[in-house]
This record gives sequence, structure tokens and C-alpha cells, in this order.
Amino acid sequence: KMNVESFNLDHTKVAAPYVRLAGTTRGANGDVIHKYDIRFCQPNKGHMEMPGLHSLEHLMAENIRNHHDTVVDISPMGCQTGFYLSVINHDDYDHILEVLEKTLHDVLEADEVPACNEIQCGWAASHSLEGAKEIAAKMLEKKEEWSQVFA
Amino acid sequence: KMNVESFNLDHTKVAAPYVRLAGTTRGANGDVIHKYDIRFCQPNKGHMEMPGLHSLEHLMAENIRNHHDTVVDISPMGCQTGFYLSVINHDDYDHILEVLEKTLHDVLEADEVPACNEIQCGWAASHSLEGAKEIAAKMLEKKEEWSQVFA
Ligand SMILES: N[C@@H](CCSC[C@H]1O[C@@H](O)[C@H](O)[C@@H]1O)C(=O)O
Ligand SMILES: N[C@@H](CCSC[C@H]1O[C@@H](O)[C@H](O)[C@@H]1O)C(=O)O
Repeated sequence: KMNVESFNLDHTKVAAPYVRLAGTTRGANGDVIHKYDIRFCQPNKGHMEMPGLHSLEHLMAENIRNHHDTVVDISPMGCQTGFYLSVINHDDYDHILEVLEKTLHDVLEADEVPACNEIQCGWAASHSLEGAKEIAAKMLEKKEEWSQVFA
Repeated sequence: KMNVESFNLDHTKVAAPYVRLAGTTRGANGDVIHKYDIRFCQPNKGHMEMPGLHSLEHLMAENIRNHHDTVVDISPMGCQTGFYLSVINHDDYDHILEVLEKTLHDVLEADEVPACNEIQCGWAASHSLEGAKEIAAKMLEKKEEWSQVFA
């Protein structure tokens, strides 16, 4: 058994898009972090292009915090098929789906990518608002399927 | 002021490579998450190519947990210049530098990328062990500069 949770997940059995609780971490004092695997693309069949993924990261990171109080981190996967979302002391899967839906609607309505300049970003040239919107729209289309993780 | 911590960081003033405490989140019960910005490349001057970055993600995610007990998440940035590392109840910056050093040495010594197959990974074709080693070697060369965040 490997240290990394996703290395023990059979990626050939999942049905993207989906939202899956990847694991929880309990601190010694009793706070609990829930980490979600938000999978936009079917593993080894599709992936997000980086400029669109990067813009989606900026848009989701900024907007999700308007819909959820205890976001610890939202970050892309190196495989470009999804994001990890970590929240603290929030154990409500259905609410996470609602928060994600609202956040993706914000992406569709955005006029610009927040912080896509050389002062606020690590690679300001690698952005695509259009790309981010396409990813968000495709994800939202399949909203009814998000809770079905396995085929 | 924006929701996202890094959007309030002046990326033109930093001197990569560096390791920076990006922020802390305290749970209602008193557990504290420390999130580090591990910057491999100078913002808007360089970036990691995705296959190398992806392999580095796998290698670091698997190996860092052998050197540190309370890793919550390690994930790349969409800008491809760094990773975020979140740990719980561990407030020792110098120890994080040691853990990172050991983890990057593991990368240099690896014979293969863990979990780089279609069962365990979201995009098995997008890997480069060579690329990951180049990134790790370059980072390790500048170990003395990691704690200097600003130029
Ligand atoms: N995981 C973070 C995401 C912030 S957006 C990340 C960006 O900050 C900048 O440093 C880089 O351009 C990067 O792409 C978060 O949860 O807030
Ligand atoms: N943030 C995680 C990193 C796991 S490696 C991530 C990989 O899992 C797989 O689902 C994908 O291929 C992805 O690239 C962690 O901290 O463990």
C-alpha cells in the first residue's frame, strides 16, 4: 500500500466528472480536514490544457472562498484531470457540490481572470479565460453525475 | 485585498528558489495548518515543464510522507513555478527545509516514478523522471538560498 491515497485508487474504474472524498486528516485537537478529489476529465482519456487550468485555478481559488468559509487549499493535480479541495471542519458532501456549482457559475460569468499579471501571478502569460470557461461549462453540464464516482 | 494569499504577494520582488510560509489556518479546536509556498522557478522568468512537474509531484507526494508525519497535501501551482505544501500542527520552518531536502534527494535517487501507470495515475503518459530529477537537482544546488524569500 502506497503513502499517497490516489495511488491506491483504480483510475480505470472511475467515471469522470465526479466529486469524491479522498480522505480526512484529524488533528490532535480534534479539527478535521476533508480533502476532495474533484475530477473534471476521465483519467487517461482527457485532460485540461494548462492555460485554461491555470485560469480556472485563479478563478476557483478566489471565488470559492466567497461561498465557503473554511477552504484550506484548492490546487490542480499534476495529471491535469482534476483539482484537490481541502476544507476544515466541514463534513457535508452535498454542500461541497453546491459550493462547487456556485463557483463554476462564477467562472462562466467572469469578465477577466483575477490576478493574471506579473505582480500577482507566477506565470502571467499562461492564462486562458476562454479555456477555463469551457472546462467549467462541460463540468456543469454533467452536474447530475458528480456524485457517481465509479462507473 | 483579495481572498487568495498569493494574489497579495508581489511576485516581482521574490527571489526563487525559496520556501515561504504562505499562511496558517486555525481550526475551531486549535489545530493549525501551515501552508508553505515552495518556489522552484523565478516567477515570469522560468517554469517547470508538465511531464517533469507531474513526476516530481508523484515522487514528492510519496516520499515526503516518509520524512514527515502530518502532511495534509502537496500540490503544484497552476503557474508551474512551485508547489504548495500543507502540514498540520508543525510549526518549524527549519525542519520543513530539512524534510524538503531529504525528499528531493529521494527524487535524485529514484529509479522510476511511483504510480506512473493508467491504474494509479490520471495521465500516465505525461511523465518524465529525467525532468523531475533536473528540477530537483537545480533546487538542491541553491539550498543555501531557500530561506531568503525576497531579493
Ligand atoms: N492553492 C492556492 C491557489 C492560489 S492561486 C495559485 C497561484 O498563485 C501564484 O503564486 C501562482 O501564480 C499560482 O498559480 C489556494 O488554495 O489558494
Ligand atoms: N496532492 C496529492 C498529490 C497526489 S499525486 C496526484 C496524482 O494522483 C492522481 O489522481 C493524479 O494522477 C495526480 O496527478 C497529495 O498530497 O497526496
